[in-house]
Amino acid sequence: MAPRALDYESLNENVKKVQYAVRGELYLRASELQKEGKKIIFTNVGNPHALGQKPLTFPRQVVALCQAPFLLDDPNVGLLYPADAIAKAKHYLAMTTGGLGAYSDSRGMPGVRKEVADFIERRDGYPSDPELIFLTDGASKGVMQILNTIIRGESDGVLVPVPQYPLYSAAISLFGGSLVPYYLEETENWGLDVNDLRQSVAQARYKGITVKAMVIINPGNPTGQCLSEANLKEILRFCYQENLALLGDEVYQQNIYQDERPFISSRKVLMGMGPPISKEVQLVSFHTVSKGYWGECGQRGGYFEMTNIPPKTVDEIYKVASVSLSPNVPAQIFMGLMVNPLKPGDISYEQFIRESKGIIESLRRRARMMTDGFNSCKNVICNFTEGAMYSFPQIRLPPKAIEAAKKAGKVPDVFYCLKLLEATGISTVPGSGFGQKEGVFHLRTTILPAEEEMPEIMASFKKFNNEFMEQYDDRSGYSRL
Amino acid sequence: MAPRALDYESLNENVKKVQYAVRGELYLRASELQKEGKKIIFTNVGNPHALGQKPLTFPRQVVALCQAPFLLDDPNVGLLYPADAIAKAKHYLAMTTGGLGAYSDSRGMPGVRKEVADFIERRDGYPSDPELIFLTDGASKGVMQILNTIIRGESDGVLVPVPQYPLYSAAISLFGGSLVPYYLEETENWGLDVNDLRQSVAQARYKGITVKAMVIINPGNPTGQCLSEANLKEILRFCYQENLALLGDEVYQQNIYQDERPFISSRKVLMGMGPPISKEVQLVSFHTVSKGYWGECGQRGGYFEMTNIPPKTVDEIYKVASVSLSPNVPAQIFMGLMVNPLKPGDISYEQFIRESKGIIESLRRRARMMTDGFNSCKNVICNFTEGAMYSFPQIRLPPKAIEAAKKAGKVPDVFYCLKLLEATGISTVPGSGFGQKEGVFHLRTTILPAEEEMPEIMASFKKFNNEFMEQYDDRSGYSRL
Repeated sequence: MAPRALDYESLNENVKKVQYAVRGELYLRASELQKEGKKIIFTNVGNPHALGQKPLTFPRQVVALCQAPFLLDDPNVGLLYPADAIAKAKHYLAMTTGGLGAYSDSRGMPGVRKEVADFIERRDGYPSDPELIFLTDGASKGVMQILNTIIRGESDGVLVPVPQYPLYSAAISLFGGSLVPYYLEETENWGLDVNDLRQSVAQARYKGITVKAMVIINPGNPTGQCLSEANLKEILRFCYQENLALLGDEVYQQNIYQDERPFISSRKVLMGMGPPISKEVQLVSFHTVSKGYWGECGQRGGYFEMTNIPPKTVDEIYKVASVSLSPNVPAQIFMGLMVNPLKPGDISYEQFIRESKGIIESLRRRARMMTDGFNSCKNVICNFTEGAMYSFPQIRLPPKAIEAAKKAGKVPDVFYCLKLLEATGISTVPGSGFGQKEGVFHLRTTILPAEEEMPEIMASFKKFNNEFMEQYDDRSGYSRL
Repeated sequence: MAPRALDYESLNENVKKVQYAVRGELYLRASELQKEGKKIIFTNVGNPHALGQKPLTFPRQVVALCQAPFLLDDPNVGLLYPADAIAKAKHYLAMTTGGLGAYSDSRGMPGVRKEVADFIERRDGYPSDPELIFLTDGASKGVMQILNTIIRGESDGVLVPVPQYPLYSAAISLFGGSLVPYYLEETENWGLDVNDLRQSVAQARYKGITVKAMVIINPGNPTGQCLSEANLKEILRFCYQENLALLGDEVYQQNIYQDERPFISSRKVLMGMGPPISKEVQLVSFHTVSKGYWGECGQRGGYFEMTNIPPKTVDEIYKVASVSLSPNVPAQIFMGLMVNPLKPGDISYEQFIRESKGIIESLRRRARMMTDGFNSCKNVICNFTEGAMYSFPQIRLPPKAIEAAKKAGKVPDVFYCLKLLEATGISTVPGSGFGQKEGVFHLRTTILPAEEEMPEIMASFKKFNNEFMEQYDDRSGYSRL
């Protein structure tokens, strides 16, 4: 019998090409080990609540009330919910067209999109138009929709940093486009050199690829660097010169662990450059409720904001969004709460600040503990995690380890990460899942394990690493930097 | 300057080809009129809560508690929440890996998938495997993922009923495949003739199209018919003979308004046919929390179940699902609650039954009121709404009306629906958005307006229709049936 429609041989080749290491071989092996009873520390994905981070109380109170609007009339409601949560729940319910159970407009509720626009205006100092803001089920869905809108086929290219968060490579594969890599410089603190960008574009064009867009992740994932204003200006000028749309993944904008380079949005820099650049460069920026001190990953809430995108294109994006009817409504309310937070004087303000400060300050300490921990290990070097939620240490694998990996049929960093997992339960993602220069190896880990567990985890890593390095040390040198 | 990446001329042509009338011209015009202050009755989309349907209390209590888990330790919790809701919240929170704020497995939480499998087994009498059940952000997202997995390019075809719910045509366009239509027979109560199916496949093959899959919507959308077991057997035998995967859209399985043909799932019929058919035909079935008496559209919860899909394909589907990390977690809990409802003796059981029965019985009455109402109008004929949430009356437009539409540059049924909207505020979807035989015109309306408002709405429709028919009556005959 001929292969059936859903037999492997018959499937869409673009689906088969997709790679997504964050939930790849390492994650699957870790899940198996967990089933067998081994204690696993899942640092493969930025999922703070899974590692014990508590949700912020106030937004949860508001959304709980929105889920149970009949409580608003209950004389006892004040015993469980503060008055400002009750007021906010009424505020958001009034924006819906039938509570959380009704589809919203496919772009999200107008009221929340207005609150997002106001937030952007306060943040950047330039007005923002709610009609150009779409709410999404998490930022990833937004990224995928925009890439799907851009990519016509394999001769359309998208510039993506290497190392990159593999959402980008996966989505480009799925939509049948071409990934055009540009390298971040590890020795330059994962900085980006515009001359290299130019070379990447030239090479792609030589191969017949039309480079249509460029992705930046700021703060960086997996690399943790924060882009400077000067660097963002160079990037925007480059996009203008090369006629590229810029996709600005800014989901970690609240996750900043140093003071030299606070977060600055691509949009603010673009607007500040003035015409013609500010009027010409097409920019789509992404944000989420999953990161920051919120970490509400499971709610799936995000938005994208479009700049210099013509109305006819916005209509097309709206049309395609409408095919899946609407983003989930509870997460839209989380987004509203995130961009329009409590103010001094509100009943719940003090608690909200205490909770959110506690989280971000602890993340800052953990970023330091982790980087320092890695740098104290043999053959491991690690740039400081300036922002985002990850450390991306380089592991200088001895030639004997690389040979052993080859024998085992594994990519060397996969080999290392699997051994780490089996020995310690620490579930990381091999650097090859993000892309890296040839012959150089990394792993990505989140900085999310509970602060009090961090010393033990780093000690456990160190012990494993040192034993591994000893086992494969042939005193004949290491993989080149 | 050359067109930029996100200028209309540069976009992915498949995106431009997408049509989705449910939120198309009529919806956009209705939204405008609403902004201008006109009272609009949105019957364009099956969105029960938007038209006043109250959510079921118990599931909302459970999910509210899951959103605010800190309340579980509050001594006053019992004043606002019944004990069985508290117990259920604990039950579902224990399934998560960090509450609602943590990403779940990309297939959804194992515990909920087990509850779905148990539900399917109880419903059909055949065991179901949780590993072959994926939870999704609404059924539409699942349908899109499966079509994306199947379609390799424009020479891959999918059999879709006409009239159809335009999710299918939209998704097939977006993924660059070919829609192969098969017609439902209005005079046969929207039944399906397998000989016509055979002809549709033969015609497509003649054009060089590989027909890979067939879609059925049961109960039908927009047509409201319920498929008989005999008909489902014919369809499955046909899929076996023609080597087609069957996509069974069964989201309206709880919405049944007659007793002659209760819902029977494609899977139950397939399993009952025995080998080789039961072992060979590939089936993917879809369900949702958005319909039935739940109507929790805004939560975006659904699942698909795969039968006879090889593990390598399941792995590919899992991999692609993992790129967007996880379906939203609150809606997964709604799904668990839907498939594993309260039992007699539970504290909230009586209330739950009262609420759900109230909704479904009212829908049944409304289905009858609407069909009867349409059939009492001049030049309008309408099959009874046996199931689902829609009426799909045929409007026999006089030639003068068709001419007037042409002059206005409108498809005739769009012309009619726009006039209806302007005159009455009733926002419907023209039949052309679903497909219909040439020269025959319909509209789709939901049966969801509040029961007490139904007489007035139908009177308002009748008045408009009769005036319209009078205006365009040239006493020279009507559009042919």
